[in-house]
Amino acid sequence: MDTSRTAADRGSALDASSSLADVFELAQQLRVDSVRCSTAAGSGHPTSGMSAADVMAVLMTRRLRYDWRDPRRTDNDHLIFSKGHASPLLYAMFKAAGVVSDEELIDGYRRAGSRLEGHPTPALPWVDAATGSLGQGIGIGVGLALAARLHGYGGDGALDNGAGPHPHVWALCGDSEMAEGSVWEALDAAGRYQLGEFTVIVDVNRLGQRGPTELQWDLDAYARRAEAFGCAAVPVDGHDVAQVDAALERARRRDRPVVILAKTRKGRGFSEVEDKPGWHGKPLPPDMAERAIAELGGERAITVSGLKPEGSLEEEKAPQSVRDEGATFPTYSLGDKVAARRAFGDALVALQSRPDVVVMDAEVGNSTYTEAFAKVRPERFYESYIAEQQMIAASVGLSVSGFKPFAATFAAFLTRAYDFIRMAAVTGADLALCGSHCGVEIGEDGPSQMGLEDLAMMRAVHGSTVLYPSDATSAAALTVAMADLPGISYLRATRGAYPVLYESGERFPIGGSKTLHTSDRDQVTLLAAGVTVHECLKAREELAQHDISARVIDLYSVKPLDADTVIRAAEETDAVVVVEDHHPEGGLGEAVLASLAGRVRVNGFGHLAVSSMPDSRSAAEQLDASGISAPHIVRLARELLTGTNEGKGK
Amino acid sequence: MDTSRTAADRGSALDASSSLADVFELAQQLRVDSVRCSTAAGSGHPTSGMSAADVMAVLMTRRLRYDWRDPRRTDNDHLIFSKGHASPLLYAMFKAAGVVSDEELIDGYRRAGSRLEGHPTPALPWVDAATGSLGQGIGIGVGLALAARLHGYGGDGALDNGAGPHPHVWALCGDSEMAEGSVWEALDAAGRYQLGEFTVIVDVNRLGQRGPTELQWDLDAYARRAEAFGCAAVPVDGHDVAQVDAALERARRRDRPVVILAKTRKGRGFSEVEDKPGWHGKPLPPDMAERAIAELGGERAITVSGLKPEGSLEEEKAPQSVRDEGATFPTYSLGDKVAARRAFGDALVALQSRPDVVVMDAEVGNSTYTEAFAKVRPERFYESYIAEQQMIAASVGLSVSGFKPFAATFAAFLTRAYDFIRMAAVTGADLALCGSHCGVEIGEDGPSQMGLEDLAMMRAVHGSTVLYPSDATSAAALTVAMADLPGISYLRATRGAYPVLYESGERFPIGGSKTLHTSDRDQVTLLAAGVTVHECLKAREELAQHDISARVIDLYSVKPLDADTVIRAAEETDAVVVVEDHHPEGGLGEAVLASLAGRVRVNGFGHLAVSSMPDSRSAAEQLDASGISAPHIVRLARELLTGTNEGKGK
Repeated sequence: MDTSRTAADRGSALDASSSLADVFELAQQLRVDSVRCSTAAGSGHPTSGMSAADVMAVLMTRRLRYDWRDPRRTDNDHLIFSKGHASPLLYAMFKAAGVVSDEELIDGYRRAGSRLEGHPTPALPWVDAATGSLGQGIGIGVGLALAARLHGYGGDGALDNGAGPHPHVWALCGDSEMAEGSVWEALDAAGRYQLGEFTVIVDVNRLGQRGPTELQWDLDAYARRAEAFGCAAVPVDGHDVAQVDAALERARRRDRPVVILAKTRKGRGFSEVEDKPGWHGKPLPPDMAERAIAELGGERAITVSGLKPEGSLEEEKAPQSVRDEGATFPTYSLGDKVAARRAFGDALVALQSRPDVVVMDAEVGNSTYTEAFAKVRPERFYESYIAEQQMIAASVGLSVSGFKPFAATFAAFLTRAYDFIRMAAVTGADLALCGSHCGVEIGEDGPSQMGLEDLAMMRAVHGSTVLYPSDATSAAALTVAMADLPGISYLRATRGAYPVLYESGERFPIGGSKTLHTSDRDQVTLLAAGVTVHECLKAREELAQHDISARVIDLYSVKPLDADTVIRAAEETDAVVVVEDHHPEGGLGEAVLASLAGRVRVNGFGHLAVSSMPDSRSAAEQLDASGISAPHIVRLARELLTGTNEGKGK
Repeated sequence: MDTSRTAADRGSALDASSSLADVFELAQQLRVDSVRCSTAAGSGHPTSGMSAADVMAVLMTRRLRYDWRDPRRTDNDHLIFSKGHASPLLYAMFKAAGVVSDEELIDGYRRAGSRLEGHPTPALPWVDAATGSLGQGIGIGVGLALAARLHGYGGDGALDNGAGPHPHVWALCGDSEMAEGSVWEALDAAGRYQLGEFTVIVDVNRLGQRGPTELQWDLDAYARRAEAFGCAAVPVDGHDVAQVDAALERARRRDRPVVILAKTRKGRGFSEVEDKPGWHGKPLPPDMAERAIAELGGERAITVSGLKPEGSLEEEKAPQSVRDEGATFPTYSLGDKVAARRAFGDALVALQSRPDVVVMDAEVGNSTYTEAFAKVRPERFYESYIAEQQMIAASVGLSVSGFKPFAATFAAFLTRAYDFIRMAAVTGADLALCGSHCGVEIGEDGPSQMGLEDLAMMRAVHGSTVLYPSDATSAAALTVAMADLPGISYLRATRGAYPVLYESGERFPIGGSKTLHTSDRDQVTLLAAGVTVHECLKAREELAQHDISARVIDLYSVKPLDADTVIRAAEETDAVVVVEDHHPEGGLGEAVLASLAGRVRVNGFGHLAVSSMPDSRSAAEQLDASGISAPHIVRLARELLTGTNEGKGK
């Protein structure tokens, strides 16, 4: 150990050659700053960072290759705090790196207007993805590593394999979060892809939020699990900086993912709380903080220059988001029966010329038609097997690296990944999701396979776009549009094949709608999307035989909704009927009501949705049994017109 | 092997002493019937059952202890098909057991009105829980095993430990579903509880929906994982009935959970499809079905009596759902500041005298206050650690066994378990869920910890009840009410402490509301629930200073909503303002609109909700920044009244 620089040297500027004694001083500074900022804020999790401070001090000084002044460099390493509640530690590291001032740290943490939020978000340029919902960081890290490979960096784990120096992904996890199944989905993926460029550090501090963790300090148990999922497990004393340093150094050179199991003590360094229960998520009161800082050796002013990445690839290897104008988009003939999900797959194939487009599957690619993309661009197709959470987590990592992931499974099974989708919105990731096999229309497979909550779920995601095409032309066009949509966009795709309604070349602006039938004497408006558009078209014909003229509007853009068209229809006709293959709550019906609310007085309003629990029967029988088929629409429209035939109260 | 009865004996009635040769004949019958019913239906997954037919034939003949005529016996074993798509096999077993006729099987499967749905549901009395969303069966099985222990059966895995014979739980899984993280959450729980009474059989047929599974026939890899999670792994040739029988026999006697890894071939027994890709989820066309049946040896008429359970416990050991009238329910003093989540915990303690109440935590029991119950009834408190999916899965198993689980975590983290909640509704489970820390009100922790989608998510669940109390009195009363609510009920609990608004003893009927302020000259109605009720009360005072009289209604029952009261308010006042700490979509605002739609013409309507992405700041600052605090309510109410002061158009 280099002892020429010592603990007394409190204003050091550390670099990769600094002694481990100095690194330990940095660790103490990280602890002191974790205490200081959380006590100043009056909330936060200082003890959860104090356990990991030694590991992080070693990492940032001697092993992390990161240009703090240029976080956008594609050859930077990545550091993701899966244990996002340890944000005081992360922000203390940012201070040590010289990119956050002490003033910002102490006065800003957890305060209004500050980017130093309670849990890290990409409001900070050194944060790849928002964390705080535990068990997500490893899966996102897998996506970051896969993105680096797509950027052209080698994938065999070598530091320099001729394709340029290899950015490494480091994820810091808590031990409690190892109980999340998503962690094992992620480690399985890391092992499968042989991500030698990925190191997970588990801060095994034994204490969770409400008491001891399940496995406490049983590093062997963690090691068996990690090894069984294809990773190399490396137990270390997380407070022995030399051991930690050696482990990190070796991890960087391994040809498979490494899980470093760091045995640590929560609240390390302050005897009043160290390894004591009852101190999770609590800042120290000011008097205790004072004693803690004293016991930790007081404040320091250590800065770290660390290691820079060795040089990025040539610019042209980065993905371009410019549309290839030469792409051929799918066309369909009017009246032909084509499933929306098939059009989705066709459109993905058309998007293959965009180098930023990647496609993610959860072992249903032959149902969602993502396998069409897999055939033409296998190098940008990722099979997640039946692990929907990991599919979304990896998508987030790819998205924040500049790629545009299209991730698809049955609409019903996207519910499995709702927490990941919600968090992706916090990250600000641009994800294009497709949920196929929506609604009772799937028929015989029964309710377990039916997406009947997906519109509610996806509409409620912050900043989301929700699309629900009724035919192949619109499905393909909207899929292509999703490639350029920011935030979380969602395409709801029907299983069955229905007639093509729109000419190829028709445009489907986001927030638009299509009025499929209208006249200057419309009495009722039928509003639908997806499969129920076809039922409304049938109902219109039947109503015409009763001398009732119906306007039929395809609300393919559920969010944002074409409020102007809906309002006009409500003003111009005597009744409005919304029909949807979804539970009554949170779907198209309520989206329509929200667009009308306070803006127009509707006379007759009817809403047909799936209110009962479906069973198994054919698609047509399902629509009828759920009360959303043409005969039900006709009946309700006639009832509403009878009930409101005293005229409009405009 | 007993050869006195042979394959030629095609009308056999098998029992536990039947020869393995006869058991193989049963397996062939199960294959033939799987082919027959799916070909007749024109859909379904015959090949996924054919791989597991030998294992199931052995199990049902020689190892399963089940009274087919009395599926409600608490001493029955449980058999859960986690691979629910193998329903043809399961239903063929029901036919062999004599409880489903051949006619029902062939003419009913997947048809309208039949209980033989595409994926099993408890419409069939021998099915504990609905499956079909993969990766859920093991977790539910854990709940069934825990329930049996609560029923008084011994927990040490012994067949007879003095507490009566021990019902065994058998779960059949596909190999593809082992990719779901929830499987590892479940096996971890099985290992932790040392569930010797639990056996998982993985049908390792190597082929998933779209091609080979990740691990194909690498039984060693599966074994390492299962062992690492605390289970005994037993690899067998799944088509060697003697090997299978020995493994099942030993599994029943183990003192820890066993994972039998059965190496099998998909489509086993019909050479045209056996171990061939491209046959997932496809019935055989009639001509192929004919050849398959011939190759499998034709139809048989084998029935199975199998083994009965050895006798149930005395009646009084079963849980009673009768309320203990002596229970003391919590009381609070008007104006005292008490958090709704604390009242939830208080009410759980009060419910301790109900022997059916069990409480489930996901390592946040000190935040949700479920730990209050843990202190008084540790034997009915289950710590799931941070594994929300497993928390819900175990709850389903407990619910279908007659218990009433209360499961709680942060509202945000219930999104993690949405697929499980959705499926619990298909099962018809009675679950009481609590999501604490809802909305931006949580303050400094930031968006990762905020439930802002939970009302949309929970409202969209079939048959759900959604409750959102504004104070401790109502929170406690609604918690107690949930103990008797059928289906999925959800209590949304605010983090912070707010003044008690209601006297102890006040009643809060489901579907009701409380009008907190009204007069005969109300101009505007303020509708809210939870924390925004308090903002509306402040706004009312402020509006009064502007000579505007506001009606304030606490819509604590979000679903069902008190439509009559809302309609009356809309009729009697000139404007309606809904205020909620939730994203605008799918929450209280849209619930109000749905209740008004087509029933009353609203003049002025305003909706305040959380439209922007929050950051970290204090609770009060959050409410203000999100535009849902009293000043925003006052401003909007005044605007609406100005805009509609030409009077009502009634």
